[in-house]
Amino acid sequence: MKERELTEKEARTKVEKLLSTVDTVYLATNGSHGHPNIRPMMPVKIDGVEKIWFCTDLESSKIIELIKDSKAAISGHSPKSMAEFRLWGSMHILDDAASRQYVWNEELESQYTGEDDPTMRVLRFDVISGMYNNKGKSGIFTI
Amino acid sequence: MKERELTEKEARTKVEKLLSTVDTVYLATNGSHGHPNIRPMMPVKIDGVEKIWFCTDLESSKIIELIKDSKAAISGHSPKSMAEFRLWGSMHILDDAASRQYVWNEELESQYTGEDDPTMRVLRFDVISGMYNNKGKSGIFTI
Repeated sequence: MKERELTEKEARTKVEKLLSTVDTVYLATNGSHGHPNIRPMMPVKIDGVEKIWFCTDLESSKIIELIKDSKAAISGHSPKSMAEFRLWGSMHILDDAASRQYVWNEELESQYTGEDDPTMRVLRFDVISGMYNNKGKSGIFTI
Repeated sequence: MKERELTEKEARTKVEKLLSTVDTVYLATNGSHGHPNIRPMMPVKIDGVEKIWFCTDLESSKIIELIKDSKAAISGHSPKSMAEFRLWGSMHILDDAASRQYVWNEELESQYTGEDDPTMRVLRFDVISGMYNNKGKSGIFTI
């Protein structure tokens, strides 16, 4: 990252646009034994660049990791342009009816019995700051 | 991860195969302020599932992170099958001529002046353990 040419507003707008085009992002958490952990995930709802929602199994290892430490990072890219973004923030595990209803969509039916499936948890990633980069043209922003 | 059906050998073979098909993987490091950090990266050389090589700019933020803590994780997936892998290990920053020569390829010419470019560093990820998952059919292995 030698150049930092974009304004905060430009970087934020570009991340928002890129986020709307990617199916899969990668989520990094503080894992066990001091190792970071990482996995691909599909967002189920995206609110601008401020909140990104996921669903996960209650038995997933990330649940324990996030209970221990909610600090997380998300990244995604366009394979075509190689534009990339990173978002830093905290991930919250939610189990209330309103959150479940908010994120529920038909695609989740293949994995869960319904929005009240007791094995499902909603994850809400609250963004603190972000970065956009496309071939060295980059910028950072804070929420 | 409810099921763990694959043997160590099967899981390792499947990760090796999947690794050979992906252009981009994601690298998670222990970043600053207790936050994990994450970014997409293109491997420049892959030795089975044991060593994965990258090139990076000396000025990249990951250099400082890896000097502080070499523990890292890598993940990738097939957008088609949604098969995914994770690898945990340590990332070493190398600056010797043999490593530079070993990883050098023509594609790097767009970024660096040559294999002896002083702004380039070689990164070698030494895998400790790994995981393969495809629709709940999964397995772990250690090196």
